Amino acid sequence: MAKPQHPVDTQDITRRITRTPFPGSRKVYLGQSQNLRVPFREISLSDTLIEQTDAPVRHETNPPLRCYDASGPYTDPDAHIDVRTGLPALRAPWIAQRGDTEVLAGISSEYGQQRLNDPLLQSLRMTAQPPVRRAMAGRNVSQMHYARQGIITPEMAFVAVRENLVRAQLAERLASERLPQRGRAFGAQMTTEITPEFVRDEVARGRAVIPCNINHPETEPMVIGRNFLVKVNANIGNSAVTSGIEEEVDKLVWSIRWGADTVMDLSTGDNIHETREWLIRNSPVPIGTVPIYQALEKVNGRAQDLSWPLFRDTLIEQAEQGVDYFTIHAGVRLAYVPLTANRLTGIVSRGGSIMAKWCLTHHRENFLYEHFEDICQIMKAYDVCFSLGDGLRPGSIADANDEAQMAELHTLGELTTLAWQHDVQVMVEGPGHVPMQLVEENVTQQLKACHEAPFYTLGPLITDISPGYDHISSAMGAAQIGWYGTAMLCYVTPKEHLGLPNRDDVKQGLIAYKIAAHAADLAKGFAGAQMWDNAISKARFEFRWEDQFRLAIDPDTAMQYHDETLPKENAKVAHFCSMCGPKFCSMKISQEVRDFARLAQPAAGNTIPIAQIERSLQEKSQDFVAAGGEIYR
Amino acid sequence: MAKPQHPVDTQDITRRITRTPFPGSRKVYLGQSQNLRVPFREISLSDTLIEQTDAPVRHETNPPLRCYDASGPYTDPDAHIDVRTGLPALRAPWIAQRGDTEVLAGISSEYGQQRLNDPLLQSLRMTAQPPVRRAMAGRNVSQMHYARQGIITPEMAFVAVRENLVRAQLAERLASERLPQRGRAFGAQMTTEITPEFVRDEVARGRAVIPCNINHPETEPMVIGRNFLVKVNANIGNSAVTSGIEEEVDKLVWSIRWGADTVMDLSTGDNIHETREWLIRNSPVPIGTVPIYQALEKVNGRAQDLSWPLFRDTLIEQAEQGVDYFTIHAGVRLAYVPLTANRLTGIVSRGGSIMAKWCLTHHRENFLYEHFEDICQIMKAYDVCFSLGDGLRPGSIADANDEAQMAELHTLGELTTLAWQHDVQVMVEGPGHVPMQLVEENVTQQLKACHEAPFYTLGPLITDISPGYDHISSAMGAAQIGWYGTAMLCYVTPKEHLGLPNRDDVKQGLIAYKIAAHAADLAKGFAGAQMWDNAISKARFEFRWEDQFRLAIDPDTAMQYHDETLPKENAKVAHFCSMCGPKFCSMKISQEVRDFARLAQPAAGNTIPIAQIERSLQEKSQDFVAAGGEIYR
Repeated sequence: MAKPQHPVDTQDITRRITRTPFPGSRKVYLGQSQNLRVPFREISLSDTLIEQTDAPVRHETNPPLRCYDASGPYTDPDAHIDVRTGLPALRAPWIAQRGDTEVLAGISSEYGQQRLNDPLLQSLRMTAQPPVRRAMAGRNVSQMHYARQGIITPEMAFVAVRENLVRAQLAERLASERLPQRGRAFGAQMTTEITPEFVRDEVARGRAVIPCNINHPETEPMVIGRNFLVKVNANIGNSAVTSGIEEEVDKLVWSIRWGADTVMDLSTGDNIHETREWLIRNSPVPIGTVPIYQALEKVNGRAQDLSWPLFRDTLIEQAEQGVDYFTIHAGVRLAYVPLTANRLTGIVSRGGSIMAKWCLTHHRENFLYEHFEDICQIMKAYDVCFSLGDGLRPGSIADANDEAQMAELHTLGELTTLAWQHDVQVMVEGPGHVPMQLVEENVTQQLKACHEAPFYTLGPLITDISPGYDHISSAMGAAQIGWYGTAMLCYVTPKEHLGLPNRDDVKQGLIAYKIAAHAADLAKGFAGAQMWDNAISKARFEFRWEDQFRLAIDPDTAMQYHDETLPKENAKVAHFCSMCGPKFCSMKISQEVRDFARLAQPAAGNTIPIAQIERSLQEKSQDFVAAGGEIYR
Repeated sequence: MAKPQHPVDTQDITRRITRTPFPGSRKVYLGQSQNLRVPFREISLSDTLIEQTDAPVRHETNPPLRCYDASGPYTDPDAHIDVRTGLPALRAPWIAQRGDTEVLAGISSEYGQQRLNDPLLQSLRMTAQPPVRRAMAGRNVSQMHYARQGIITPEMAFVAVRENLVRAQLAERLASERLPQRGRAFGAQMTTEITPEFVRDEVARGRAVIPCNINHPETEPMVIGRNFLVKVNANIGNSAVTSGIEEEVDKLVWSIRWGADTVMDLSTGDNIHETREWLIRNSPVPIGTVPIYQALEKVNGRAQDLSWPLFRDTLIEQAEQGVDYFTIHAGVRLAYVPLTANRLTGIVSRGGSIMAKWCLTHHRENFLYEHFEDICQIMKAYDVCFSLGDGLRPGSIADANDEAQMAELHTLGELTTLAWQHDVQVMVEGPGHVPMQLVEENVTQQLKACHEAPFYTLGPLITDISPGYDHISSAMGAAQIGWYGTAMLCYVTPKEHLGLPNRDDVKQGLIAYKIAAHAADLAKGFAGAQMWDNAISKARFEFRWEDQFRLAIDPDTAMQYHDETLPKENAKVAHFCSMCGPKFCSMKISQEVRDFARLAQPAAGNTIPIAQIERSLQEKSQDFVAAGGEIYR
């Protein structure tokens, strides 16, 4: 029996969560022709004003920029949201129409039933319990299974619209964009168009996953794979000492506002089951968990008391709530544990050390490894995706890429193959702490050992010396590993190694990682990624300050920093900034150069013959001086 | 005539500047055998306590870690500092003893004399005017000139002790360190020992510079070159709208506290001449400037009014004050200006656009290019080092590595050769905004075009979308470009593109860049760099919290973040942290694993035969359980 609980304060949640749209942005939905409503954020931009010598100012339109948007209905002012009932079940009809699932009379997990029937927990439950679905006997409801049957699901079609947006938009704008397209993709396929068939094929091959449990119909489908945009995960979750359901729901909404593509609930405190319910029902992004954490709580933190039946019940409990992917530390084999003995920092993965302790105490092979196919049976009955945990990841530069890490990686490769035999979706987790020169090897080895299953890495931190700034040192590694081929980056917050992240830490971690992910997309030569950079740089060059804020990865901070130095409203339309001041401005002079070159050679393309320019310059320099030598006349 | 001035408030400066030593750290001086006092920061560490089954706790000493230290006498509590008179002139006897300089009767610059004789500026001057030196007629006082004569100067010997510290310390500790040394150095020479002769040779070849104007005898010599530790520069300086001498001196001291190896004074506001005087006299690190900024102020911001005589006088003015390196935008040739016309963001370098405007207005070749050898004459008379400015650096991803940038780079290569003909030291500046896949090319091209002269880069930012976080997106690029071979990284603060950095922005920029520089040292395989990482990781693994804070790149922030979650004093000696909590701790379990493996195979080296371990495990698992299954009995 649980102890009596304070009821969840839904008014408090509603007060906490941020629903304001981003400045100058509106939510748009595409994919209507396919009966889909695929959300994007559209940033509207002001005109470029071109002053002309003998004519009125000419207006040149800057088309709005549509961006990939993980923030869900929360940033849509037209969406009605009631946290007590959760988000609309977008995918429910798709799932029902497939006709391969059944609605259960109730939940199957013993623990889940016990919680459900505990009257003291009534106050922690949401208003309505949605129906619980499971695959009919003998059926497999994973997206990989459908993909391998040649079926394009609505989830795949949705994802195709979502991922193709940037490319499609690029095609619309190509005339006005200068995109050098000089990427280096390390073997990733940077296609010109993302079609539903392309998505299906990638999922069928196991090179991409669409985490979407049939019991989480609220998700807006998203894809994780090397040939798609690099994704970012945020970890949240309560602990023994801090945070209630209200704060966790707020952190979820806050995470997706700042771009989290998936969120992991790593709760280890009170009411893990109920916290997860609130998170899943209110989440438009896939939710991942590490089920062994909850299992450990169930045995009061004694790793040696863990057992397969208890763990199995936990998997079913969470699968029926709608968790989209499970981190499973099945690669921490008994024989590998001694390989960590001479490490500088031993085993630093919490899941890894739980399993190591279990293995040592019982002197038995890891039960997750031994029951791996039993786990696959559960995964395919709900379409839960594996995230094969790297329990032996290095916790310091000294331990990077060592024997223990590589031994586990090869086992994760075997397990990937085994999961794929069950048509179960798989991601593979990666380190950790790795110096720059060893980062690429992590990707190369993972792609090889795990047959191109999507790589999902924590950082890596490229040095150990930066507690308090580990979001920075790890985002440095993340940008590189994303470029080399990692499909999803798990964020690190400034509190890593020191304490538990608060709301602001979550944001700081996400911003650093969204920068890393976008930089990786750019470097891979992903068609259209540079559109965003070009839009903000054009706004900067033309002193469209408001547009520069709107296009910033964090408009609030950009505006606030600007206002610290030049707070006046009219400074935001000024043709100068605080760095050079009004007297001298490098951007302004650049515009003069451009005009001058235009005058000198009206028909100039990209290459201007120097000799000709020199002659023209000589002719025109007098005009320039005579006319006042200033462009803004 | 200047307007009347508020006197400089030296009490205010003394109040502002931070002189507290870092926690658990003391200043030590090495090199006594060579009559040198080379400063280091020594971090003392507590013992590792090893609990034993049938014996008292055993203490294992952790040797103190000595670190490279740019903070100067300010962090030495024994140093007497009076900002009115400046730091002791450490190098004065060395300079005098060389016998190749003369003390001038007074300063040579017309502008400098004018300022000196203006009674209204009296209140802005320091207590004493130090003697001004210049090379005797026909002499060359540059470190490169000495090096090429085969002379090892005290500056070179000092630098050798300073740079060799980490390696020497490594040798002392090697038995207990596990350093894989698997660097990738992209052609840099990671030697096992830095000798004075090695320094001399690098300076003679032009592959390293020691910026040390004979009129800045207060400097603690430091070296910039690919075969030495990667260095970091911080930009400070007032502007038309903000900041007085008091704040600038404070920012200087604050910058070096957080690791700035050189500081550039980019003042463009009032009293540039006097501000610089205070900075140089109180700076133990080399001071760089962009003389064209001050020259432009002298002509009221009208670039077209600049002239060689005015610029020449500015160079002499600053050289006689003691500026250690000048950014000179001599590569912005007239013919290259039109190459920027089709750029997305034109010319973004302030110096570059000043020269472009001058070139266009007069239709003449850049006067810095035409007078380059005249500039060399000044440089060698005071030993000012060139920092050849990249006036055409890209200001956006779209413009990276373009024709204009590369054309200028090749001119900088020609100018490097020309400067070297005069035995004048040279660094070459680099971009800017560059996507990851084009970063390496910048280094490769620079090394080739500029004959391995040290590369000194701003960032680069690897995306344009992060105003407010450009210290992060640029530090990502900086870590990589440092790894590939950049010798010094110019920091970027969170205010880049938005406003003027304040004290905290300076710190944020520096921390991000020190992480980048250290990560680059690590990745290059710099012998001993990993010692620092190992020390902090060992402290972390052993729950020596205080040691972890001391070893953190920013002890204050690390401690503050820890205390937010677990504020109690005894949490700092706890064998757990807030992430896992006392019930379950992955580090603790790792220690059990280690103990267990030790029991299982006492003589194990780095490799433990799995079969043997398996047998031992089987034998020992009962013992483990029987003894309680916990290490901390």
